Amino acid sequence: MGDQPIHPFDRALALRAVADGRYEVSSSAEYWNMNGPFGGLTCATALHAALQHAPASMEPVSLTVNFCAPQKPGLSSLQVREIRRGKWTSHLLVRMRAEDGTDVVTATVVCGVREPGFSHQVVTMPTVAPPHELPSMPADPRFAWLQQYDFRFVSGALRLNDPQAIGQRNAGSILWVRDRIPRPLDRLSLAALCDVFFLRVFHVRQKLALAGTVTLTAQFHASDEDLARQSDRHILGVADASTFTRQFFDQQARLWSDDGTLLATTTQLGWFQS
Amino acid sequence: MGDQPIHPFDRALALRAVADGRYEVSSSAEYWNMNGPFGGLTCATALHAALQHAPASMEPVSLTVNFCAPQKPGLSSLQVREIRRGKWTSHLLVRMRAEDGTDVVTATVVCGVREPGFSHQVVTMPTVAPPHELPSMPADPRFAWLQQYDFRFVSGALRLNDPQAIGQRNAGSILWVRDRIPRPLDRLSLAALCDVFFLRVFHVRQKLALAGTVTLTAQFHASDEDLARQSDRHILGVADASTFTRQFFDQQARLWSDDGTLLATTTQLGWFQS
Repeated sequence: MGDQPIHPFDRALALRAVADGRYEVSSSAEYWNMNGPFGGLTCATALHAALQHAPASMEPVSLTVNFCAPQKPGLSSLQVREIRRGKWTSHLLVRMRAEDGTDVVTATVVCGVREPGFSHQVVTMPTVAPPHELPSMPADPRFAWLQQYDFRFVSGALRLNDPQAIGQRNAGSILWVRDRIPRPLDRLSLAALCDVFFLRVFHVRQKLALAGTVTLTAQFHASDEDLARQSDRHILGVADASTFTRQFFDQQARLWSDDGTLLATTTQLGWFQS
Repeated sequence: MGDQPIHPFDRALALRAVADGRYEVSSSAEYWNMNGPFGGLTCATALHAALQHAPASMEPVSLTVNFCAPQKPGLSSLQVREIRRGKWTSHLLVRMRAEDGTDVVTATVVCGVREPGFSHQVVTMPTVAPPHELPSMPADPRFAWLQQYDFRFVSGALRLNDPQAIGQRNAGSILWVRDRIPRPLDRLSLAALCDVFFLRVFHVRQKLALAGTVTLTAQFHASDEDLARQSDRHILGVADASTFTRQFFDQQARLWSDDGTLLATTTQLGWFQS
């Protein structure tokens, strides 16, 4: 279809194979956060590497990414091993190291054969205003990765330092989100979107402080047809937390197609400085 | 305190160190399920091995266990590596193999320093009848591990093959549960309890069929004081699912102390035969 420029997400995800099961990836200035890459990009990168070694007959069904150490700009290396392949599932292990050899990420990926059969979606998408009726969040220029997404909050937007919002201690958000430069949804961008929700500790305290995701698990429910039908439009994210205690907190999110199909569920554990 | 008999859970968890970072464990007939060990025991065993290599100043905060292959009775070996130790967290990797060398489990464990500070429990425990007012579930003798726990369902008990229950397609359960032989709660038994909830696919379809947990993630919120205060009484579990589609489903649970403190949150992805 002619010379389409490469989307920033695909540029950031580009792997160079350096040996069997070994890849290099360059850090992306476009997806940089304040003190490291956007965690969702790291999730997508780990998944991208794992999928090079998964059976073509299987889809990713689950991904756990452990953020072991801060990442600096530069090259990272990824090592992928398929630990076990069964009839219905494949289990893969990914280790990511910085240029100086520091282990920065471990990830486990499960792929599975998905066939039609019994189907039941227990939960239903909340009824909310459509994205075109909601303002696009202005992106804070200190965080490059924010420029890569279009955020339209239905509720639970950050209101930093607002005394009334601090008093509410609300950890929940509902928002429409998509790549700012439209790109059809696929499993890699869905994995990245699983970490697009701001740390709930920022919401509940309405202040930015030293904090980060320690481990994230994403579960993928979308079929190829669900992804194709959603294409590049906004998905709906519903995020919340259950507890903040002794420097750690959890958060969960559901990611919905705009026709109400549950695409993914995710949970993470974060650390915060008290 | 005299000769206390060893609790079956501690007997099942006993590790033999065979080399630095290598352990052996024997399968437990007492915690056997139909076609393998009770998954919660596997979670506790992986955590137990990891904690031998975690800094004493840190507590486990998160655990992911991937069930790679069916387990048979016999010896298993565990290999533990601390991948990265930082100031606030330690990341460990566990691999478990069967006697024939098959990789049966991979697990990642995060431990963290937990200090007092900002604290906010967002969610609240449902108000339910106390355990002594509810009947204890009769344990199906085909599943040895069921004998090891006392289950008292508040709602969402299994009603296998009941047409009315099948029609409801209810995936949720609320139940009190503790070790049948009382044992004070600790982080290992809490890890096991994170997998004590029957597969939601059995509940929503009200039939037993070929199914199993593929991967489980548990997040630990309880302090030493929370565990000591709870001791050996029943904890409250609230479990549900969000979707069943194309042979996989998710499930989530919250585990509560009987005074309403959130002890742990957990999610898993399961496979089922359609």
